[in-house]
Amino acid sequence: MNKKNSKKAAVIIIGNEILSGRTQDLNISYIGKNLEKLGIILVEVIIIPDVEVTIIDKVKHYSGNYDYVFTTGGIGPTHDDITAASIAKAFNVKMLRNSEAVAIMERYYEPGTLTEARLKMADIPEGASLIDNPVSGAPAFQINNVFVLAGVPKIMQAMFDSLTDRLVGGPPILTASVCTNLTESKLAEGMTNIQNECEAVSIGSYPYFKHGKLGVNIVLRSTNKELLLQQTELIEKLIKGIGGKIYKD
Amino acid sequence: MNKKNSKKAAVIIIGNEILSGRTQDLNISYIGKNLEKLGIILVEVIIIPDVEVTIIDKVKHYSGNYDYVFTTGGIGPTHDDITAASIAKAFNVKMLRNSEAVAIMERYYEPGTLTEARLKMADIPEGASLIDNPVSGAPAFQINNVFVLAGVPKIMQAMFDSLTDRLVGGPPILTASVCTNLTESKLAEGMTNIQNECEAVSIGSYPYFKHGKLGVNIVLRSTNKELLLQQTELIEKLIKGIGGKIYKD
Repeated sequence: MNKKNSKKAAVIIIGNEILSGRTQDLNISYIGKNLEKLGIILVEVIIIPDVEVTIIDKVKHYSGNYDYVFTTGGIGPTHDDITAASIAKAFNVKMLRNSEAVAIMERYYEPGTLTEARLKMADIPEGASLIDNPVSGAPAFQINNVFVLAGVPKIMQAMFDSLTDRLVGGPPILTASVCTNLTESKLAEGMTNIQNECEAVSIGSYPYFKHGKLGVNIVLRSTNKELLLQQTELIEKLIKGIGGKIYKD
Repeated sequence: MNKKNSKKAAVIIIGNEILSGRTQDLNISYIGKNLEKLGIILVEVIIIPDVEVTIIDKVKHYSGNYDYVFTTGGIGPTHDDITAASIAKAFNVKMLRNSEAVAIMERYYEPGTLTEARLKMADIPEGASLIDNPVSGAPAFQINNVFVLAGVPKIMQAMFDSLTDRLVGGPPILTASVCTNLTESKLAEGMTNIQNECEAVSIGSYPYFKHGKLGVNIVLRSTNKELLLQQTELIEKLIKGIGGKIYKD
């Protein structure tokens, strides 16, 4: 696949609960899938604990090396929500009570319920621009090329959807998939030949194990629709040629 | 929480399919949860594409800085399975056809079906020790402090379960959780006080959004059972004191 024109993104998942296995992350796949539609490739994801020095270090690294960085988690009102303040330190700016954020939250909460604890969520790094939160009021924010989002998937997704007009992607990455009952071993040689014939279409094979049976999903990706269809047909011919079945996804 | 005696682990997830969002990772939570039971803290997870130079770079980094490293993905028989060979390069050793692995696979496969493509899975870095694969035959392997496992969750889990006697952990990390209908904002101040009273019990609060309602899971973690129970009681008192409900997990 031609990746020269593609924009590259990284995701930083901030949260002890993901690392301890207590919470199943659902944000990576949502971000990866939706970036791909925009022609942006998710190149690396890192999952780190709620530790200030680690957040600062990773935000600096990824912000400097990728076109776009997305963080999830740690922007609530409690003692373990240290993402916003850590990111301010990473960019060497102050945390300020953001009057636009306060106004949004005043509209969202019932009169008298916008407590000091809630207002902590309006403390945002200086110079950041807000990102709309249609689900629970308190906005997320963007600073430089870093988008700082909530960890709760429903809220994260709504925030992500409301920021996509700020992202400039390359040509969209198109995908096709073929699912078969054959094992990878039977497909390996033929698939290698098909891959070698055309570098513009990258072919991945992903074994699965369902109901006690192994099978394979073959996924083709390219920015060129014609070549993608051509290579997909070759994969289907390969499967049929060695007596395999093709399933729809 | 006292982390001085704890062993530290990192996970490297290798796979374009996770980054593109096509496949939902299920391995991180399994590994995180089971390491915790063994008194090993999962400190960092990185998700990277199937790119040799990246795999080499990350394996070197994490192997040098953590007690244990687990990789998942990329050990099958196809052209995009480059994990084993990349790890051999990271440790500057040769790839060799492992006779023990061949013998295991000869027992697993029907006579005549152990093809050259399948035998590729018996090519393993020199000096590595095998890890049993009760699900699909071809073994995984360990080299130095790096455990190289399959990506398919069922297979990865069986491999992980069969290697745990090689891991030496610290005191087991105990957890307790309290789930409530209160929002984080209402709990923030009281929870901060309880956290500040006792550093040996770390308190995390994780908002959730279900059926249109927000609530919070509060998770307490410690290696000290008595202190864990004491702090959990304080959290429950806090919730009741401000009129919240407590749910069982």
